[in-house]
Amino acid sequence: MKFYDCSTAPSPRRVRIFIAEKGMDIPTVQVDLRGGEQMTPEFRAKNPRCTVPVLELDDGTCLGDIVAIQRYLEEIQPEPPLLGRDAKDKAVVAMWDRAMEFDGVLAVAEALRNAAKGMANRALTGPVDYAQIPELAERGRQRVRRFLADLDTRLGDSAHVAGPDYTVADITALVAVDFAGWIKEAIPDDAGNLKRWHAEVSARPSAKL
Amino acid sequence: MKFYDCSTAPSPRRVRIFIAEKGMDIPTVQVDLRGGEQMTPEFRAKNPRCTVPVLELDDGTCLGDIVAIQRYLEEIQPEPPLLGRDAKDKAVVAMWDRAMEFDGVLAVAEALRNAAKGMANRALTGPVDYAQIPELAERGRQRVRRFLADLDTRLGDSAHVAGPDYTVADITALVAVDFAGWIKEAIPDDAGNLKRWHAEVSARPSAKL
Repeated sequence: MKFYDCSTAPSPRRVRIFIAEKGMDIPTVQVDLRGGEQMTPEFRAKNPRCTVPVLELDDGTCLGDIVAIQRYLEEIQPEPPLLGRDAKDKAVVAMWDRAMEFDGVLAVAEALRNAAKGMANRALTGPVDYAQIPELAERGRQRVRRFLADLDTRLGDSAHVAGPDYTVADITALVAVDFAGWIKEAIPDDAGNLKRWHAEVSARPSAKL
Repeated sequence: MKFYDCSTAPSPRRVRIFIAEKGMDIPTVQVDLRGGEQMTPEFRAKNPRCTVPVLELDDGTCLGDIVAIQRYLEEIQPEPPLLGRDAKDKAVVAMWDRAMEFDGVLAVAEALRNAAKGMANRALTGPVDYAQIPELAERGRQRVRRFLADLDTRLGDSAHVAGPDYTVADITALVAVDFAGWIKEAIPDDAGNLKRWHAEVSARPSAKL
């Protein structure tokens, strides 16, 4: 296997942390996103979506999607389980993980990519250029604030995002919360539950990645 | 189990078709989306995201997410497999399913919800009102056209979306293509591969749902 990463980017961080939590060691290649390496014909052959992360399997199959990679790694290395233990648990983890992605990671990306000067015409990742939409940047920011407030509420009811155990939903939430820092949306002062959880998950060695 | 559906809506259709392909029979409740039933305290208690579908389990756990519901049903009723057979296959199916959702279903929703007169301030599903953004409606439409063209290319290389077998990725793609009809984006005349596939998957009894 070969893992195509970019050590400064939040999306592949969701897989970096996952790999570390599994205790796996996968040969890693850094992709120069700033230099546009993801747009080259060589990289497009691996992932036509022109994004990292990508996991290349030994038979040449390339998985160019975070959740697909996590699913594969969970199958080949079940312990410790990060996607849930039984049928109900797997579904609950998937539900929370998707909420953290949609309301968290994607909302921050919406705010960032539609406003950052260095991302003109890069409002969406991928091979097609799309112009920035300032109103969408503002909407993204509103959504991020709502996300942080809702997550604080959730973590008042539950030790971790999807329930008592640490799962992939905590990884996605951590990446989202830290990514929100890129647009200067910090954890609110009164979000005590979110602060408690953020300190705990950030103390895990995997979070340093 | 109890399935909360709305028979006219595309999102729960992804689960309706999935249930039919599994040959399952689950007691179903229609939720009156037009009348705003998804916003009532009773429904919010089941799904704070105020969306259908929801699957309520016998212990009261509510799954308010399409992919979470599909994951649960695949676990309790593995045959016929719709999420892939082995580790690699499961990952490849997940990758394609997510592409069909992001590039297809969500792009149509972006185009529709940011333009439809009846959806003022309902640019996103969920409990919070967000104003329509006309530029986003236009971007969504561009993305839908690209989606249809890319899907035609893919189906020139592959019998089904994720490979030789019918999977959940075909369900998501079918719902996306039919949903595109809501914004009058039809399958292009020259998209022969997409037409062939669309006729095949539409002929399955599950597609009538």
